[in-house]
Amino acid sequence: MVEKFVLFVPVGSMLALIFAFFQAKKVLGFSEGSDRMRKISASIRQGANAYLRRQYTGIGLFFVVMFVVLGIMAFYGFLTPFVPFAFIMGGFFSGLSGFIGMKIATAANARTAQASSESLNRGLRVAFSAGSVMGFTVIGLGLLNLSICFFLLKYVFYAGLAGDEAKQISEISSAMLTFGMGASSMALFARVGGGIFTKAADVGADLVGKVEAGIPEDDPRNPAVIADNVGDNVGDVAGMGADLYESYVGSIVATIALAVSAGYNFGGAAVPMLMAAVGTLASIAGTFFVRCGEKTDQKVLLGALRKGTYVSSALIIIAAFPVIYYSLDCARYPERIGVYAAVLSGLLAGVLIGFFTEYFTSATYKPTQELSDASLTGPATIIIGGISLGMFSTLLPVIIVGVSVLVSFFASGGAADFARGLYGVGISAVGMLSTLGITLATDAYGPVADNAGGIAEMSHLPAEVRERTDALDSLGNTTAATGKGFAIGSAALTALALILAYIDEIKLKSPGFAFDLSIINPPVLIGLFVGTMLPFLFSSMTMKGVGRAAQNIVREVRRQFREIPGLMEGTADADYAACVDICTKGAQKEMIAPALTGIVSPIVVGLLLGVNGVAGMLAGATASGFVLAVMMANAGGAWDNAKKYIESGSHGGKGSDPHKAAVVGDTVGDPFKDTSGPSINILIKLLSMVSIVFAGLILRFSLF
Amino acid sequence: MVEKFVLFVPVGSMLALIFAFFQAKKVLGFSEGSDRMRKISASIRQGANAYLRRQYTGIGLFFVVMFVVLGIMAFYGFLTPFVPFAFIMGGFFSGLSGFIGMKIATAANARTAQASSESLNRGLRVAFSAGSVMGFTVIGLGLLNLSICFFLLKYVFYAGLAGDEAKQISEISSAMLTFGMGASSMALFARVGGGIFTKAADVGADLVGKVEAGIPEDDPRNPAVIADNVGDNVGDVAGMGADLYESYVGSIVATIALAVSAGYNFGGAAVPMLMAAVGTLASIAGTFFVRCGEKTDQKVLLGALRKGTYVSSALIIIAAFPVIYYSLDCARYPERIGVYAAVLSGLLAGVLIGFFTEYFTSATYKPTQELSDASLTGPATIIIGGISLGMFSTLLPVIIVGVSVLVSFFASGGAADFARGLYGVGISAVGMLSTLGITLATDAYGPVADNAGGIAEMSHLPAEVRERTDALDSLGNTTAATGKGFAIGSAALTALALILAYIDEIKLKSPGFAFDLSIINPPVLIGLFVGTMLPFLFSSMTMKGVGRAAQNIVREVRRQFREIPGLMEGTADADYAACVDICTKGAQKEMIAPALTGIVSPIVVGLLLGVNGVAGMLAGATASGFVLAVMMANAGGAWDNAKKYIESGSHGGKGSDPHKAAVVGDTVGDPFKDTSGPSINILIKLLSMVSIVFAGLILRFSLF
Repeated sequence: MVEKFVLFVPVGSMLALIFAFFQAKKVLGFSEGSDRMRKISASIRQGANAYLRRQYTGIGLFFVVMFVVLGIMAFYGFLTPFVPFAFIMGGFFSGLSGFIGMKIATAANARTAQASSESLNRGLRVAFSAGSVMGFTVIGLGLLNLSICFFLLKYVFYAGLAGDEAKQISEISSAMLTFGMGASSMALFARVGGGIFTKAADVGADLVGKVEAGIPEDDPRNPAVIADNVGDNVGDVAGMGADLYESYVGSIVATIALAVSAGYNFGGAAVPMLMAAVGTLASIAGTFFVRCGEKTDQKVLLGALRKGTYVSSALIIIAAFPVIYYSLDCARYPERIGVYAAVLSGLLAGVLIGFFTEYFTSATYKPTQELSDASLTGPATIIIGGISLGMFSTLLPVIIVGVSVLVSFFASGGAADFARGLYGVGISAVGMLSTLGITLATDAYGPVADNAGGIAEMSHLPAEVRERTDALDSLGNTTAATGKGFAIGSAALTALALILAYIDEIKLKSPGFAFDLSIINPPVLIGLFVGTMLPFLFSSMTMKGVGRAAQNIVREVRRQFREIPGLMEGTADADYAACVDICTKGAQKEMIAPALTGIVSPIVVGLLLGVNGVAGMLAGATASGFVLAVMMANAGGAWDNAKKYIESGSHGGKGSDPHKAAVVGDTVGDPFKDTSGPSINILIKLLSMVSIVFAGLILRFSLF
Repeated sequence: MVEKFVLFVPVGSMLALIFAFFQAKKVLGFSEGSDRMRKISASIRQGANAYLRRQYTGIGLFFVVMFVVLGIMAFYGFLTPFVPFAFIMGGFFSGLSGFIGMKIATAANARTAQASSESLNRGLRVAFSAGSVMGFTVIGLGLLNLSICFFLLKYVFYAGLAGDEAKQISEISSAMLTFGMGASSMALFARVGGGIFTKAADVGADLVGKVEAGIPEDDPRNPAVIADNVGDNVGDVAGMGADLYESYVGSIVATIALAVSAGYNFGGAAVPMLMAAVGTLASIAGTFFVRCGEKTDQKVLLGALRKGTYVSSALIIIAAFPVIYYSLDCARYPERIGVYAAVLSGLLAGVLIGFFTEYFTSATYKPTQELSDASLTGPATIIIGGISLGMFSTLLPVIIVGVSVLVSFFASGGAADFARGLYGVGISAVGMLSTLGITLATDAYGPVADNAGGIAEMSHLPAEVRERTDALDSLGNTTAATGKGFAIGSAALTALALILAYIDEIKLKSPGFAFDLSIINPPVLIGLFVGTMLPFLFSSMTMKGVGRAAQNIVREVRRQFREIPGLMEGTADADYAACVDICTKGAQKEMIAPALTGIVSPIVVGLLLGVNGVAGMLAGATASGFVLAVMMANAGGAWDNAKKYIESGSHGGKGSDPHKAAVVGDTVGDPFKDTSGPSINILIKLLSMVSIVFAGLILRFSLF
C-alpha cells in the first residue's frame, strides 16, 4: 500500500511547480512602472544574467571534469554507473532552482516598487508572490529530482532486486545520496560566488560612495550601485535557493539511507519523501493566509507573514501522524509511532533557532540595543561587542540542536535499537525542512523588497514610496534573520544525518569494515581537529576573497569619479557595467579556492587518515561549522541593525561619530553574515557528500 | 634502579629553585635609578601587590568552598581523602609561581630602565635574569609539588600497595591528577582576572589618552598609565606563570596516569618526571649561552636568546635517550625505545608552532605587512583582514599537532597496543614542555622590558634610553609570540593527554564501565557540540568583561581630566591609585562568570549526558579551543605589529588615517591576544581536570 502512496511525491512536486508558475504569472501581471524604472530593472537583470551565465559556464567546466572523474571511478567499479549522471542531475536542478528564483526576483523588483507607489499592501503582495515562486520552485524541483531518481532506480536499475526489499532500498539510497553531492557542489559555488559578488559590490560601493564621496546609499551617481543591486539577486536569491535546495534533498536522501539499517525498509524510506510531499501542500495552503487588510502597520505585516508559516506548521503536525502511522505500520508495531516525536522536535527546533536568531539580531531586543551603545566609544568597542554578542549567541542554538537530537534519537527507539534512533535524527531534519516552501517564500521576499527600494531611490520616486519599500525591506530583514537561523539549523541536522548515512554507506560497501569511531582513536581525534579547523580556513578564504574583490571595486569607482566629467553633478551616467563585470570576474576567481577546499579535504583526509579519520573530520566540521556560522550570522545581523537603530535617531543619528563607528561594524559584518556564514552551511554538507561519494576509493587506497 | 633515579626529581626541583634564587639576587643587585624611577616602580609594585592581595583573597574563598565540597565528596567515598589537600596544594603552588614571578618582574622594571641607560646589553641582562627567575620558579615549584605528592603517596598513603606495583601507581596517578585541578583553577582565575585587568587598563588608557586627549602612550599625565603597567605584570607575568605551571604539571601527571594502562608501571611513570628533571638542567645550561658582545643589533640579541633555547633543546634530545632506555628497560624490550620519537616529535612541534606564530604575526613577514595595507581603506578592512589572517593561521598548527600525535602514537607502539600509543601522546606533551624553564624565561622577559619602557618615558629619561627599551620591548614581542604559540600547543597536547587520563580514570573507578565513545553515539555527539561551543561562550564572557571594565576606566580618566586642575598641563599629579582600584574591582567581578563556566560545565554535561558525553565535550572543547585560541592570538598579534609597522613609517606613519585604522585593529586585538585567547588554553585543561575529579560523582548520578 505504501508503494502506491509514494506516487504522491511526484504529484506534490507537480503541484508545487504549478503553484510557482501561477505565482510567477501573477507577479508578471503587475506593471513595471516608468521608463526609468524599467531601464534600471533591465540593467540589474542584465547584470544578474551576465553573472549567472559566466558562473554556470565556469561551474559547467567543473561538472564536466567531475563527470569524467566519477565516470572513471564507476568504470573501475568504485561507484555504480548511475552516480555520474546523478551528480550532474543534482547540480542541474540545484542551479535551476537558483536561476528561476533569480529570474523572478529581477522581474519583480521594479514591479514591487511600482506597486508600492500605490499601496504598501500591493507592494507586499508582489514581493511575497515573487518569494513564493522561489520557495515552491525549490521544493518542486527537489521532489521532482527525488522522484525521477527513485522511480528510475526502483523500477529500472534495481528492478531485479525486487525480491530483496532491504537490499534494493539500500542500493537505491546509496545511489541517491550521490546526487546530493552534485547539488552541494553547485550550491557551494552559488553561495560563495554570489556571496563574494554581493559583498564586494556592497562594501566597495559603501567605502567610496558613502564614506569618501559622501553620497547616500543607492544613489545613481555611484557606479557600483547597479552591481550592489545585482548582488542581492545573485547572492541572497540564487545562492540561498541552491543552498536550501541542497539541504532539502540532502536531509531526505540521508534519511532514506538510514531507513535501511533501521530495518524499516520501504516504509521507512517513504516517510521522508511523503513528509516532504505533505509539507508542500501545507505550504501552499499556508500562503493563502498571508493576507491583510489595508492597514500598513509593520507588526500587522509581520503577523501576516508569520500566520502563513504557523498555519503550514500546524497542518504538517496534523498530517505527519497518519503518514508515519501507515508508512511504518504502527498498527502492528505501535512503538514506531515515536518517530512522530522526531518530526515535532525538528519543527520546534527550527522555530526556536529562528526566534533566538531574531532575538540576538533585532534592534527591538536588548542585545542589539546594547551593541549600539558600544558605538559611543568608537569602532573598536563596537567590533569587540559584536564578536562577543555573536559568540554568546551560539549557546542556545547548540542546546536546541542537542535537545532535538536527543529527543529524536530516544523517542524513535534509540535506546533499544541504535539504528532506529539515528533514523529519528534524520527524520527531525526532514521535519524541520518540511515547511521549506513557505519559509523560503518569506525569506526570498526580502531581497526583492531591497531591490525595489534601490529602484525607487534611483528613479527618484516620491519619498513616501521609498518609505514604503523601506518598511518592506525592514520586514525582510527580520524574516531574513529567521530564515538564516533556519538555514543554519537545518544544515546542522542534515549534516548530522549525512554523517550517519556515511557510516551506513561504508557498511554497505565493506560489510566487514572494522570501525573504530572512538574519539580517543588518534585518526578520529586528528580528523576532529582538522574538521574543526576547516570552517575557519574556509571563512578566511571567503573573507579574503571579498576583500580583494572589494578593493578592485573601490579602485574602479574612484577611477570613474575621477575620469567621468559631470558624474558627481549628476549630468553624466556612470559606467555601471564595468563594476558588474569586475564583481563577476572577482567572484569567479575567488570562489575557486574555497570550493575546492570543500571538495578536496575529505579525499585528502580520507587517504591519510582513513574512514575513521573522515568520520572525525565530519563531526568536527559540523560542530565547529555550526557554531561559527551562528556566530558570524548573528554578529553580522546585530551590527547591521545596530547601525539602523542609530540611523533611526539614537546616539546622535546619521552622520554622528557613533554612527560612523556603527558603519565600521556593519561593513565588517557584511562578509560575516552574507558570505562566510551562510557558505559554511553548505561546506559542512558538501564535506559529508564528498565523503560518501568517494567512500569506495578511500576504502581501497587509504593509508589506515 | 629506576626508583632511585626518581630521587633525581626533587634534586632537579631544588637546583631550579636555587638557580632562580641566584638570578633574583643578581637582578636585585642592579640599581633602581633615580628617585622618580624608584617612585614610579614603587607605584606599579604597590598596584600589583594590591591586585594580587585582593585576587588571592577572592580565590582563597573559592578554594575554601571547593575544599569543603571535595571534603564532603571524599567523606562519601567519591574521592580519596588525599584529593582536597592535593587541590589546595596545586592551587597554592600555581599561585605562588605567579606571585614570585610578579614580585621579581616589578622589582626588575626600573632596574632594566636604569641598566638600559648604561647599555642595551645591560638592559637585556637584567630583564632576561628576571625572566629566568620566573621560568625556573615555575618548573622548580612544579617539580617540588610533584615530588611531595609522589613520595607522600608512594611511601605513606599507598605504601601498603607496594606489593602490587600496577595498582599502586594507578592509585597514585589518580590522586595526583587532582592536584592539577587546583592548579588549573588558580591558573584560570589568574589568567582571566589578569587578562581583564591588563586589557581594561590598556584599552581604557588608549581610548581616552591617545584618541581623545591626544597624549602619547605611557604619558604620566594619563591617570590610567600606572594601571596599564601594573596590568603587564598581573596579566602577562602572574597569569602566564600560573598558566604554564599548570600545563607543566598537567602533562606530567596525565602521562603518569597513562603509564599504568600502557603496562609500563613504575618505569613509565618515572619517564615524564625524569624528563622534566633533565629538562631543568638543560634549561639552566641553556641560560649560560644567552650572552652577546657589545653589539646592539636586534638580530644579534634575538640570536642570543634563541641560542639558549636551542642549546637546551639539544641537551634534552641527548639526555632523553638514556632516560627512556633505562626507565622503560629497553635492553629487554627494544621496541619501547620508540617512545623516544614521541619526545622528539613533541619538541619539534613546539618549535614549529612557535615559528609559524611568529611568521603570521611579525611585521618582518608578508602576512602582517599585507594586513597593514588593508589599513589604507579604513578600519573595517583591517578588521576583516586580521580576522581572516587569524583564521587562516590555524591551518598549520592543526596539521603540526595532528602529525605530532600520529607520530607519537605509532612510534610508541600504538598499532600493536592502543594504550602504549596513548602513552606516547602524553610523552610528546612532556617533550614539548621539557624546555619550559628557558622558554618561559625568554617569554617573561617581555613584560619587564615593556614596563621598563614605561618607566623610562614617565621619568623623562633621555630619548636614547627609550629607544633601547623599545628595542628590548620589540624583541620581547617576538619572543612573546613564540611563547604564545608554545603555550597554546602545549595546552592542546596536555589537554589531549588529560582526556585520555580521564578515560583511564573512569576505567579505574568503574572497571566494567561500558564505554561508547563513538562519535555517532548521540551523547558523544551532543557533548562534542557543547564542547565546541564552550570556548566561544567563554571568549564572549571574557571579552565582555574587558569591555565593561574598560568603560569604567574611560569614565574615570575623563573625570580626572575634567576635575583635576593642571593635570593636562603637567602641573598636577593624576590619581593613579583610583584607576588601579577600578581595574582590580572590575577584574575580580568579571572573572567569576567565565571561571565558573569552566568548572560547572563538565559537571552539568556529565550529569545530563554521562561519561561518554563528557568525553565528547572534552574532545570538542580541545579542538575548538585550540583553533580559536590560535586564531585570536595570531589576529591580535598581527594587528599589534601592523600598527607598529605603520608607526615605523609605512603608509604615512603615526597620525595618518591608516594609522588610525590600525589603532582600531590593535584595540580589537588586545582582548583577543591577551585575555580571551590565552585563557582558552587553561579552559580546555581545566575542563578535563574537573571531569577527572568529579568522575566518581558523574558515574553515580548521571542520567545516562
